[in-house]
Amino acid sequence: MIYADNAATTKPSQKVIEAMVACLSEDYGNPSSVYTLGQRAAELLQNARERVAKNLGCDPSEITFTSGGSEADNQAIRTAAFLGAQKGKKHLISTPFEHHAVLHTLNKLEREGFEVTYLDVHENGLVTAEQVAQAIRPDTALVSIMFANNEIGTIQPVGEIGAVCREKGVLFHCDSVQAIGHVPVNVYDLKIDFLALSAHKFHGPKGVGVLYTKKGIRLQNLIEGGAQERGKRAGTENVPGIVGMAVAMDDAIANLDKQATYVAPLRDKLIDGLSKIPHSILNGDRTQRLPGNVNFCFEGIEGESLLLLLDNEGICASSGSACTSGSLDPSHVLLSIGRPPEIAHGSLRLTISEDTTHEEVDTLIKAVTEAVEYLRSISPVWRNLQEGKQDFIIQ
Amino acid sequence: MIYADNAATTKPSQKVIEAMVACLSEDYGNPSSVYTLGQRAAELLQNARERVAKNLGCDPSEITFTSGGSEADNQAIRTAAFLGAQKGKKHLISTPFEHHAVLHTLNKLEREGFEVTYLDVHENGLVTAEQVAQAIRPDTALVSIMFANNEIGTIQPVGEIGAVCREKGVLFHCDSVQAIGHVPVNVYDLKIDFLALSAHKFHGPKGVGVLYTKKGIRLQNLIEGGAQERGKRAGTENVPGIVGMAVAMDDAIANLDKQATYVAPLRDKLIDGLSKIPHSILNGDRTQRLPGNVNFCFEGIEGESLLLLLDNEGICASSGSACTSGSLDPSHVLLSIGRPPEIAHGSLRLTISEDTTHEEVDTLIKAVTEAVEYLRSISPVWRNLQEGKQDFIIQ
Repeated sequence: MIYADNAATTKPSQKVIEAMVACLSEDYGNPSSVYTLGQRAAELLQNARERVAKNLGCDPSEITFTSGGSEADNQAIRTAAFLGAQKGKKHLISTPFEHHAVLHTLNKLEREGFEVTYLDVHENGLVTAEQVAQAIRPDTALVSIMFANNEIGTIQPVGEIGAVCREKGVLFHCDSVQAIGHVPVNVYDLKIDFLALSAHKFHGPKGVGVLYTKKGIRLQNLIEGGAQERGKRAGTENVPGIVGMAVAMDDAIANLDKQATYVAPLRDKLIDGLSKIPHSILNGDRTQRLPGNVNFCFEGIEGESLLLLLDNEGICASSGSACTSGSLDPSHVLLSIGRPPEIAHGSLRLTISEDTTHEEVDTLIKAVTEAVEYLRSISPVWRNLQEGKQDFIIQ
Repeated sequence: MIYADNAATTKPSQKVIEAMVACLSEDYGNPSSVYTLGQRAAELLQNARERVAKNLGCDPSEITFTSGGSEADNQAIRTAAFLGAQKGKKHLISTPFEHHAVLHTLNKLEREGFEVTYLDVHENGLVTAEQVAQAIRPDTALVSIMFANNEIGTIQPVGEIGAVCREKGVLFHCDSVQAIGHVPVNVYDLKIDFLALSAHKFHGPKGVGVLYTKKGIRLQNLIEGGAQERGKRAGTENVPGIVGMAVAMDDAIANLDKQATYVAPLRDKLIDGLSKIPHSILNGDRTQRLPGNVNFCFEGIEGESLLLLLDNEGICASSGSACTSGSLDPSHVLLSIGRPPEIAHGSLRLTISEDTTHEEVDTLIKAVTEAVEYLRSISPVWRNLQEGKQDFIIQ
């Protein structure tokens, strides 16, 4: 099997699993309990908090453990909207190619009376700090722009956007689920006010994430109840998951250079190989992208059929994000960068990791090339294109 | 070590841990992915959903996986409040001794314009269906009453309350976090509309729970985003946690008779033993209580000191719920049943499980008796009581 869908989820490392099993079998106390077993769990939690904070370049008190990236996104945006509304600020700025955890929260806020400006995304999958600066109004409560796109992997100019927001006194939320563990992120340097991350995107467990909230911002609860997480996120803490996340994050951050020196060149080899397929186009900027992300559109085919053929060859790949698979709508991300729906339907996302080998990339190139050829050979659309009855969209 | 705080959290069974490790190491795919590895995760998820549903006596489509009991409580109450408000119904009924996940959500709704009637709790820790019937008004949107109290273990007449609510057309949420796996629960028979449960209360993992929602009720999202859980709870599913929960729940339900035939008699032995301590009183009804729950007040001592002494003897116990420990306020549960604050401060909760032995109960009785005696020997309050300068509250 070749696992080339690391943006959907990653395989937890053996070290992560071992740390989790230790918590499950030995350190199973409730961190809120006063006796030794409980205090041991509380220490593990605090230790994990300190490690996560160090990896993000912030203070442990700014870390809130959540059940994942979606919850963190929801809580960040809800908090900013609540705080903004208290001052009569009900304008929000975002982009149309955010993750649905952001977009659907914004949609709900629109129904509650907020106004959202969605910045135009350039064809290369990027927005600029200038666009943000121009969109900011006196009543803007929040700018919510993702660090790296989950489908096309483009990395936004986060530092520049953060500087603009800080200068204008507007809160900045950065959904960094795809970026953490893949590119360096320092929340203070980048002037980020809220940051969401998810452990299972960097070889940690599913069901656990983090919301970083800059000191001084009064976080609003999404989940009310016990006094866990300084009273800002109720529910007995998922100690094994949190400890597993800290282990995975330490490893990912320690190996960041490998992303740049090993994964990125491998990605470029994959892009070069797939670019040779006629009437194909890379989605997203060639260089301003995640080290492991490759996303192509191939004219004349359906992405889903391509995935099934690849699955037959033992290749795990996706057409868009896992969160939207099963939907027949074309990717909102590809539409946002101007791909027409018929082209967006023929997309393929391959996301490799530091575990991916050169041999696997060779196999991926060969398998995708052959599968695209085969699908085109049975495609009526392709026949029309070949016979000149229809014009190629991708040259 | 004697672990006598199973209401705070439980030790995951070896079977649970093995099932989780299999998911973490082998079946790590994203259930939303179309390829075989992802579909395998989706099957595990569906299988877990069917098992959980069967254990609750409902349909798999009525199960929503959450990050735990608190999230489920929040989502149930928020949904009922939203649906009620749409019809102009902004009255809610509950009790003052609910878990804070319920109480704090209700408090927030009060600040948003809802009115909440808190039923008086009888001295034995019970409310009646008659009280509920009398409190229901034409504008009542929800009755939220817990199945079993997390501190004093009293089991409410849930079936009678459910029948009253159903007859009057009012939604009924039952926080069943402490009940599931300890007493039989069938949501259809009991006419429950929403039910919250948490895996780590029955030897499953922390960080995962369930919200049961009766078919036909339009659940409102707490977490917006991807289409997971029929679009009602976004975020990549915590597959290892959910699978671990299903394993734990199957075991707990299969062994329910052991709760009645082994744990409850052991609890009674513990109650009998501790009742011999002078000026002590059992909190909560003697028979209408969870098989494993023992909760006493001892006059003239501080609960926290008692816990520390017991911890020195390797005994894990609590004074109230783990979620409120660390707080210096007396237990809101003990206050609700009429215990004065000075007595409520001297409380001890011991919650045993099917893993507890007779020898351990003997040790618990001896250790608690000696610790209470010691604390009284150094207590100025106790001296005043002995010398008649103060009257005993507990005879």
